Amino acid sequence: MGMVSSQLSISLDGYVAGPEQSQQDPLGRGGLRLHEWVFGLDTWRAQHGLSGGDRGVDADVVEEMTRDIGAYVMGRRMFGGGDGAWDESWQGWWGDDPPFRTPVFVLSHHPRAPLVMGGTEFRFVTDGIESALRQAREAAGDRRVSIAGGASTVRQYLAAGFVDTLQLHLVPIILGAGERLFDGIEPRLEQVSVVAGPTVTHLTYRVLR
Amino acid sequence: MGMVSSQLSISLDGYVAGPEQSQQDPLGRGGLRLHEWVFGLDTWRAQHGLSGGDRGVDADVVEEMTRDIGAYVMGRRMFGGGDGAWDESWQGWWGDDPPFRTPVFVLSHHPRAPLVMGGTEFRFVTDGIESALRQAREAAGDRRVSIAGGASTVRQYLAAGFVDTLQLHLVPIILGAGERLFDGIEPRLEQVSVVAGPTVTHLTYRVLR
Repeated sequence: MGMVSSQLSISLDGYVAGPEQSQQDPLGRGGLRLHEWVFGLDTWRAQHGLSGGDRGVDADVVEEMTRDIGAYVMGRRMFGGGDGAWDESWQGWWGDDPPFRTPVFVLSHHPRAPLVMGGTEFRFVTDGIESALRQAREAAGDRRVSIAGGASTVRQYLAAGFVDTLQLHLVPIILGAGERLFDGIEPRLEQVSVVAGPTVTHLTYRVLR
Repeated sequence: MGMVSSQLSISLDGYVAGPEQSQQDPLGRGGLRLHEWVFGLDTWRAQHGLSGGDRGVDADVVEEMTRDIGAYVMGRRMFGGGDGAWDESWQGWWGDDPPFRTPVFVLSHHPRAPLVMGGTEFRFVTDGIESALRQAREAAGDRRVSIAGGASTVRQYLAAGFVDTLQLHLVPIILGAGERLFDGIEPRLEQVSVVAGPTVTHLTYRVLR
């Protein structure tokens, strides 16, 4: 059975999103700064249907962390479209060909029919994180399942002991406020590998049971 | 003129001490876990008059970060002895031969005569952080000045723009509560070097002006 992993960009003071997150500003004030390291990379651009971009250590990390994923799980907020019953005109943030290209299991309290967009199929799961993970594992087979986010979804899976590997991209900024990855959870972590990019550091931890 | 540096062990959630710090428990609950990586190292043990210990990457980092220091500045809490006027029977936590072996400038609101202990001379400074740094620079000459701690002292020097290099030893533990290094300050940092030890990661940042 494949491993379950999660990867997040995190500030030096432990935030994975800025304050005042909203439908208009899903990463919160200043939160986009956590992800600036990734937007210029050739591997990230290729996954998003764009050409060109930078090669190097960061691009290699992005390629390696996405290469062997057979399914994703994400929270309702990461898929977007607001709270409550679905407005089915909302089809995510990623355009006609989302970068996942595997089944993506979206946690929700509200049922919705599967949605195929390019090579990605979004399936909406209403019976909890354990069911979503079981379905993702079945879809992924021997490949990995990635808990894609947002932070509260990753926190729930960490708290439940379902995550094998946590990768943090440590960005040397101070957000000062916002959403903290480790708010209320204290997973036991063991350092597995460290890769220094030019501006950020990629830390991989095994989550101990 | 020598550089001003500071180095601290920090948890993944941004704490440099645990909660409920006191004279009896100066690192707070769980705070000692931030420093466990250092106690077994041969370089640390030698600085504290002990023989034996582990060699390796962490020991090299400790040796390099302490090698070229010509003076230290520390806060009253780090020197210890409680608040208010000095009880002169208190001579610090470090025994007869403290590991600094340079002048150490201790910030205090209460005057006290210099205290020589082995190769270390503690000098007590009552006219503020800028004066302490100026005196430390004079004592250090071309060598570095280290802002030794505690966290609130490092924060004050960072906020005032007096620190050139910040080294963080990132320990993969979650403290959940306690004293946060970046509480109320947002220094602009640029990653200079990353060294992976077996259990912790040593991150060096330039503090931008």
